[in-house]
Formats: sequence, C-alpha cells, structure tokens
Amino acid sequence: MGASVSFIGVGTMGGPMARNLLRAGHRVRVFDLDSRLVAGLEKDGAEVAANAAAAASEADCVITMLPRGEHVESALFGDQGAATAMREGTLYIDMSTILPSHCERFAHRLRAAGVCVVDAPVGRSSQHAIDGKLLIMVGGEAGDVDRARAFLEPLGDTIVHCGPTGAGQKMKLVNNYMSIALNALTAEALVMAESAGLDPEQARSVMLGTVAGQGHMGTTYPAKVLKGDLTPGFMVDLAHKDMGLALAMAGELDAPAWLGAVAHQTYGLARRHGRGAEDWTAVYAALRETAMGDER
Amino acid sequence: MGASVSFIGVGTMGGPMARNLLRAGHRVRVFDLDSRLVAGLEKDGAEVAANAAAAASEADCVITMLPRGEHVESALFGDQGAATAMREGTLYIDMSTILPSHCERFAHRLRAAGVCVVDAPVGRSSQHAIDGKLLIMVGGEAGDVDRARAFLEPLGDTIVHCGPTGAGQKMKLVNNYMSIALNALTAEALVMAESAGLDPEQARSVMLGTVAGQGHMGTTYPAKVLKGDLTPGFMVDLAHKDMGLALAMAGELDAPAWLGAVAHQTYGLARRHGRGAEDWTAVYAALRETAMGDER
Amino acid sequence: MGASVSFIGVGTMGGPMARNLLRAGHRVRVFDLDSRLVAGLEKDGAEVAANAAAAASEADCVITMLPRGEHVESALFGDQGAATAMREGTLYIDMSTILPSHCERFAHRLRAAGVCVVDAPVGRSSQHAIDGKLLIMVGGEAGDVDRARAFLEPLGDTIVHCGPTGAGQKMKLVNNYMSIALNALTAEALVMAESAGLDPEQARSVMLGTVAGQGHMGTTYPAKVLKGDLTPGFMVDLAHKDMGLALAMAGELDAPAWLGAVAHQTYGLARRHGRGAEDWTAVYAALRETAMGDER
Amino acid sequence: MGASVSFIGVGTMGGPMARNLLRAGHRVRVFDLDSRLVAGLEKDGAEVAANAAAAASEADCVITMLPRGEHVESALFGDQGAATAMREGTLYIDMSTILPSHCERFAHRLRAAGVCVVDAPVGRSSQHAIDGKLLIMVGGEAGDVDRARAFLEPLGDTIVHCGPTGAGQKMKLVNNYMSIALNALTAEALVMAESAGLDPEQARSVMLGTVAGQGHMGTTYPAKVLKGDLTPGFMVDLAHKDMGLALAMAGELDAPAWLGAVAHQTYGLARRHGRGAEDWTAVYAALRETAMGDER
Repeated sequence: MGASVSFIGVGTMGGPMARNLLRAGHRVRVFDLDSRLVAGLEKDGAEVAANAAAAASEADCVITMLPRGEHVESALFGDQGAATAMREGTLYIDMSTILPSHCERFAHRLRAAGVCVVDAPVGRSSQHAIDGKLLIMVGGEAGDVDRARAFLEPLGDTIVHCGPTGAGQKMKLVNNYMSIALNALTAEALVMAESAGLDPEQARSVMLGTVAGQGHMGTTYPAKVLKGDLTPGFMVDLAHKDMGLALAMAGELDAPAWLGAVAHQTYGLARRHGRGAEDWTAVYAALRETAMGDER
Repeated sequence: MGASVSFIGVGTMGGPMARNLLRAGHRVRVFDLDSRLVAGLEKDGAEVAANAAAAASEADCVITMLPRGEHVESALFGDQGAATAMREGTLYIDMSTILPSHCERFAHRLRAAGVCVVDAPVGRSSQHAIDGKLLIMVGGEAGDVDRARAFLEPLGDTIVHCGPTGAGQKMKLVNNYMSIALNALTAEALVMAESAGLDPEQARSVMLGTVAGQGHMGTTYPAKVLKGDLTPGFMVDLAHKDMGLALAMAGELDAPAWLGAVAHQTYGLARRHGRGAEDWTAVYAALRETAMGDER
Repeated sequence: MGASVSFIGVGTMGGPMARNLLRAGHRVRVFDLDSRLVAGLEKDGAEVAANAAAAASEADCVITMLPRGEHVESALFGDQGAATAMREGTLYIDMSTILPSHCERFAHRLRAAGVCVVDAPVGRSSQHAIDGKLLIMVGGEAGDVDRARAFLEPLGDTIVHCGPTGAGQKMKLVNNYMSIALNALTAEALVMAESAGLDPEQARSVMLGTVAGQGHMGTTYPAKVLKGDLTPGFMVDLAHKDMGLALAMAGELDAPAWLGAVAHQTYGLARRHGRGAEDWTAVYAALRETAMGDER
Repeated sequence: MGASVSFIGVGTMGGPMARNLLRAGHRVRVFDLDSRLVAGLEKDGAEVAANAAAAASEADCVITMLPRGEHVESALFGDQGAATAMREGTLYIDMSTILPSHCERFAHRLRAAGVCVVDAPVGRSSQHAIDGKLLIMVGGEAGDVDRARAFLEPLGDTIVHCGPTGAGQKMKLVNNYMSIALNALTAEALVMAESAGLDPEQARSVMLGTVAGQGHMGTTYPAKVLKGDLTPGFMVDLAHKDMGLALAMAGELDAPAWLGAVAHQTYGLARRHGRGAEDWTAVYAALRETAMGDER
C-alpha cells in the first residue's frame, strides 16, 4: 500500500504529477493557493487541504512544486507553513526550480528539525509531466534520495542523482542555461540566413548535417578537448576569422548577431591564452582556466 | 578523359583537394606562394606553375582555396594574377571562405571578361578534405553550377546549391556563425557545471538527453514555431526566469556566462514584443520581426 | 533638542552616518550583528541595543543601512526584528541598496501597521559618508519625505526626491547601472589603447577632450536627441562603420572589446529602425521605441 | 605663399576642410567621384581635376578624405590613381578613418616610391570641420609630421602626434570605440530610468552629478587605479552586487540592458582575478592583465 504524500502546488506541472502519484497508489493530499486547481484532483481521489501546514500534517513525504523561491519559502515558513507540520524523519522533496543557495538555506532550517531534504527539479515539458516521463535531477544524501525514488519514479523516466542538497537545482540551471541560450542563438542563425536571402529551411537542413545543428557535446568535444587532444581539426584562429566574417556580413545585412558578437570575444580570450593554433574546442580549456585557475 | 584544372592555394585543405582532383583523372596545374607545398603534389602528378597567371593559362577550370579575401583578390587581380589568363567561358570556382560582398565584387569583374563564376566554400574538417567527403555550399547560376559538379564531386559528398553567386559564402558563414558561437556557449555550460561542483561528464550526459545537447533545430523548432504553433510547451516567461536564476547562480560561483547574459536580454526583447506567454521558440519569431519587419 | 533615532547596520557606510546623526544632536541607538562595530559608536555617545527590536523601540525614526535585501528583511521581520517595535507613525528609512520590488514589498507590510516608509539609498563613497556629503536618492510620499529631511540632511549635501516608495532605489540602480558599466567600458578603451602601442596616458588625455571622456549626457544628448533634433552631427551609419573598424582592430590586437561588440549590435538595431542617416544620438530614440513602444 | 595641395574626397567633412586650406593661402586642386561636390569649391578658388592622378600631379601635398579603406585604396592604386603621380618627397596625408593595418599596408607601398606618409584622421563634427576646429590625431615620422603641420593647422585646433604611421588611426578608433559604445550605454540608462517610472530629465541631472554622467577617466581613474591605489572607495564586490540588482530590476521592467549584462561579466572576471575586495577601478587592472599578461 502506498505512502501518504502531501503535494503543494498543483499547476501546469504539479497537477499531472500529483495525478501520477495517485495512479501509483499513494494517498495524496493537495494544497494550492488557487483553489480552482485542486477541484479536478479531488475528483481523481486526492484529499484537499486548507493550507500548507494541513497538507503536510502526518505526511510521509511533502512535495512542493511552485513557481519561485519566495513561494517555496512562504509555503514552508510562512503563516500556516508546511515546516510547522513536518516531523523528525519526514521526507521533503522540493521539485520547484529555485536558486541553489536558497535551496541550501531552506534545507538548513528544515534539517535542524530532523526533516530529510531532497531537491528534485524537473526537465522536459508539461506533456512529459502528464506522461510520467520527466527528467528529474536530484540532490541530497544517498539515503534520502533512495527513499525519494518511490515518489519520483511515477513522475519521470530519467532520475539522475547529481550530488548533495542543491545539486539537483544546479544541474537543472546548467541544463537550462544551455538550452535557453541556445534557443536565442538558433534564432539568430536562422534570421541571419533569411536576411542573407537564403532559404531558411535549406539553411536548417544544412546545419542539421553539421555541428551547427548537432551540437558539440556529442561530437567535437569527446573527439578532441575532452580526451586531451587539441591538435587542430579546425583552428581557434580560423574560427575567430570566420566569426569576424560572419559578423561583418551580419553588419552589412543589419541582421541581429548579439550572441555571436560576444562569442567572437571568447575566441579572442582563447587567443590571448596562447591557444590560437589549437583546435577550436580549446575554447573550453581556455574558459575553464579563467574560472578554475588551472589547465586541463 | 579529365579536364584541365588550375588549383591555386594548396595548404591544409587545398592540398588534399588538389590530390583528389588528380585521382579523379583531371590534369591539375598547381600554384602556391609557399613553394614547399607544391613539391608533394608534383610527385603525385600535378604540374607546378610559377605564378597564378601561368597556372590559370588554358585551364578549363580555375579553383582558388586561399585563407582570406585579400589573398583571393591578389591571386586574381594582382601582378601575374589569374584573371589575366582566364578566357571567355573559363569556369572559376572560389572555394575560400570570404566575405560574400567581396565574392560578389570579384565575380562582377570576372564576368565582364566572360568568365563563369561559382563560389563553393567547404564545411567539415581537414580529414574530410583528405577523404573527399567535404560539405560544399555552392553559389552561382544553375548552368555554371552544373558545370562545376565535375570538379566538386571528387571533393565532397554533400553539394548544396544555395542560390546565386555569393550564396555559397552566405550559407557557409551562417553555418559557421552557429557552430562557432555554439562552441563558446558549450564551454560556458560545462565550466559552469564544474564551478557548481557538478561532475562535468554527468552534466554533459544529462544535456545530451535534452535540447541543451541536442539542439533546437531538429526538435523544438519543427515541433513549434516553424509550424506556426506557439502554444507554450515551455513559456518565454519561464525561460526568462530560469535564465535569471542561472545567471544569479553563475554570479555567486564567479562562473563566466557572457553568452547567457546576452541571451537573457533576447528573451527580454521577446517579452517586450508581447510574447512572454508564448512558447520559448517564439524568440525566433520576435527576432525575425526585428530584422525582417513583419510577423511570421 | 534632537529626535530619537535607531540606526541598524553600522559598517563602512552606516558607522560614519550614525556618527553624523549624533553630531547633529540626535539621540542615536545602534545595533549591528557584528558587535565590534558598535564599540566605537558607544564612545561617541550612541546607545547600544541588543537586537533590532530593542534598537527600534520607542524611536521616532528607524534607519537601516545593510548590505542586502535579505538582511533588511531579517532586521525588520526576523526574530526580534524591528517591525515588532515600530508604532503607528514611526518613520522608517531604509538607506540600503536593495531591489525596488523588495523595497515595495517591505513597505507594504510596514504600512499595514501604520509605519511611514521612505527609501533613501546613497551615492558616492565612504569618504563622502564621513564628510556628510552623500548623494541621497529618496522615494516616498511627500509628507514622509519632508519628515525624513531632518535625518537625511546631516548625512548628505544632495537630497533628491525621486517619486513614491521604491523610486529612490530605482534612481540609485539606474545611476549605478551607468557608472558600473561605464567603468568596464573605460577599462576596455584604455587597454585597447595600450594593446595598440599607444601611450594610455595620451589616449586618456585625448578622450578627456571628446565625448569619449566627457560623456553624452551633458553634451550630445541635450544638443540633439533630447531637443528633438536628429539631423546628423555624426551619423548612426558612420558610428556603426567606425565601431566595425574598432572591433576589427581589437580582433587583430586580441584586445578585449566585449561592451563594444554588444554596442555595435545596438547600432544595428537603430539601423533596422530606419535611423541609419540620423544623428548617432538616435540610438536613444531607437532603444526607447523598443522599450516604450512609441516614438520620441 | 602657400603650397600646392591636392585634396581628394570633398564631401561633408572634406569640402569644408579643402575650403579652409584655400583660406590659409594654399593652392588647392580637388577631385571627387561625385562631380557635384567640386562645383562649390571651384567657385571658392579651387582647381578641379579629372581624376586622382591629375589631382596629385606636381602637388607638394596630397590629402585623402574618403569614407572607407577601399575608397582610399582605389584613389591611390586604382586606375588613374594618385600613387602614379606622387614623386619622391611628396607628402601624403590620409585623413580618412580606416583600419590601421590597411593604413600601414598603403604606407608601405608608397614609401617604396619615396613618398612621405602621414595618417591624420579627425575627431569632432562637421561643424568643427567648417570652423577649422577639428581634433586631428596624427601618425608618422617626426619629420613628416612637422611638414604636415602647415596643412593640418588650418583644419584643426588640436593636433596630437600619437606615434608612427597608423598611430593616428589607432587613437581615432580607440576614441570612437569609447564614445560610440558610451552612447549606447547612455541610451540604456535613460530608457531604464523611464521604464522604472522615473523622470528621465531628473535621472540625467542626478547622473551629471556622479561618475555615471561625468565619466571615470578624469575622476576615479586618476584618483585610484592609475596611481596604484586599489584600497576600496567602492568595492568590486559591491559594484558586482549592485549591477546584479540593476539587471534584476531591468528584467522585471523589460528594459533593455545589453551592455550592463556584459559589464556584469567583466566584474565576474575581476573577482576571478582575486580583486573582489579592491576598488572598482581594479576592473581596469584585471582586464589589462588578461590582455597584456602582466600586473599593473
């Protein structure tokens, strides 16, 4: 028989997640500031609580899925907050995306009361939430993470333990940093193609055949810099030159090229690090030196 | 029997390309300012010319593969330049990567003398040049491009006709804009992971399972904005919020985040265009509006 | 005879500010989490309180001068926070630099208890704090701001009422946005001069004779865009071209040029807005359109 | 009696400059591709030449004032270019703004023929050209620059010898880099003020009272980093924090903040260099290290 789960925050993502916990056989008590959101869940078998503290009361596991850190703080430590109802040994899983330093601060307060804390923000889309196929990035102590699996497995098909408390948030933010910036870059490239009079569909098709569309993480990086080989397949100096040409073309076309303008500067940094004649993936090595203070 | 080809510029890329033309049965006459580069080709059966004009003399097809636009200009129009030796009907293929506006300027001068001009810069690496498996992006009139195929097919396995003269250069620069900036972004994401105390290999593995590593061109774009569906799978506003968190984390970690900082501004632009509640791929639609002056 | 003032946060800035209030004849009760900081003030005649609530008790005016919004929140609303001790009509002045939206949130909670709230962050340096010559940017209702003057005048020689609660913070952040980014830009220009083999002192001297060193706010802006005159003294198109040259030079020199690379894109935006042939100050008009949605 | 001067390029800037040389008593022969531009000058006493070579023939001094490097190249070395008419000892002054590396290339070719070469691009506006009050930044050998003064003094009131050939161009581009980027930054700050609901005129007035409006070159830099004093008046860490707040505010307001977003990263770089607790002008020292490879 399932455990008793409190689910706080049942919007676009939290709603289907709570439903999947019900389907998995757990007893689920839900709370949301927006009372319209809980109605459907009540029909599906969830118990509805009047506030966060009531939801959390006597639960084996308390889950929050809220938009921002201040909502989490308020749901935990505000008036009638869940923290007042959590006991020694209660498992608390925050699945919201918040700042890792906030996550660590909340965890610190809860642990003082004996609560076991896990952060488990999710990746992918609302459709994946419905299908129980989210990507879940988890931070916490090994024992707590193991306990959490019973509640995470109905929600996602990929559960990655990334390190101690906060590590789930960190992984989520690194992943989203990449995908969100990449979207802006992709937009620039396709707009530039069209501004140049090219067929943007043909441009997309060409790029899908190169690292432009396929990315570096599964191609050039494992083949070169990640195995310590910086003999040039394509030189930093040539990439710097080609980006200069692309920016000059964009300037003539009045095509927006914000990210490329900045990336050009990153190659300048790699050249200043004496890496002009190395493989272009040496940009990673150069940037790493500036951040970590040593060489790879 | 093969045609008579003049190949000017036989360095890291041009050398193996000239060799592949020899293998395909063409008579190849080579020239390079660096005389050491031509020696090996002479052994392989190439004829060596004393200057660009001599190389181009009586050739059916003249190919240049040079580092910069000023080298191409000099090889064509400088002292003993190839232009003086090209006749009405000679096919000239520039495979260098140069500014499209320079390409168009050179073509204009050559066409006045009846020369047929095609630009055909290449993608991929020096190993692909050796293997005859380059990506070749071609600009020029259809008839000229058809004539050029006999000389391009020994060099590459993907030949894309992108439009009129200069279009090959434009496609090349758009492709390289994307791949070169993406390299800098990839470096930032992996350095951020490590600065956050995450295992960078685990981070890479997680991202290879999401659009962070797989890119948007073959995933979110065809699923959403390119088919005109901007109902949110992941909202612009949420992407804006998550990037804000990622930048705040990077600030706490002192991790470099230049491209993300700029991308955050691009999402601000999309929000100012009233697209905050649309799918994040609406960033493309917003950027396109600023450049093309209309809506998609 | 002076009023009773509670001063919370007596570090590098707050310490000399509290001292100036003592000199002006006020009775000052101080509190700081770092007890070493209060010792000197006690000698100078301040009363030392054990916590924020004790400091605020029966004060006519409570002032906070703390590093971050979370410190202000904690000093006000945490355990033994000042909010518990403030009465109907107490004047609260926050002189910390915090996010305007946080400022507005705190003000909202305090006003519910009848407290009069003013934000008054300061500009200039710690030496100015000692000399009582700070720049003070004030937000709040006119009556409250008038009451606050008795406490602000001993601290600064320029007191600017910027608007309702939060407006002081907004002015401060706009001012610091400008001065902080300008510092990074100044560094780039002087490093570029030296990278180019110029004497950086001569470069500084030349620039002090132009808007490069004197700024636009008191020169080109009032002469052109702010009075609606966009006939070109120096055209957007030429500025775009010159920045392109400067960036190409920086690229050849490997001089860092991050801000200029981005500024070049801003001129591209102005050109896309049809402002290429207008005065370069039209960049302001173009940027304003993207943000405010109308023309100036 | 005046010398014989050839002036090539008599547009918005060159026209009034040629007129000032006539006024100073020189015999001036002018050429411009746009024949409408020379008509007025002919009335004022200039002789009109049919091409650049004819203009340069038998001149003591040849001056070019053209929009781009390719125009200069063409006026010198194209068909009927001025280079063919310059003799041993002719003084050539290029007052156009072009890439220093192009300037050096042209000078190299002309010196082979005994021509004395000086670059002398100008600053300030077209009104200053009319008034003979330009800022002239000069590069060249001391003897050549001394000869050039007779022709530059009628044109400007500030003549700065910046170093060998090309140094004038370098100084011009550094100056314009700063002033052009500063314009974009100024626009952002004023738009941000208005987006925040502040009176932009009041914001401008406040900033004119701080380094935001006055600049760092004549204030904080000579007071701190340039005399080797990095004890903090305002700490790098605090500037980093304040910029973070300003960017967060801009994000909430949807105000464009491209340059500030990038400048925030520059402060991150200074922090990674261990300069967080130093004066904010240490950003210059940190950036200089990345470019020059040593400490100041």
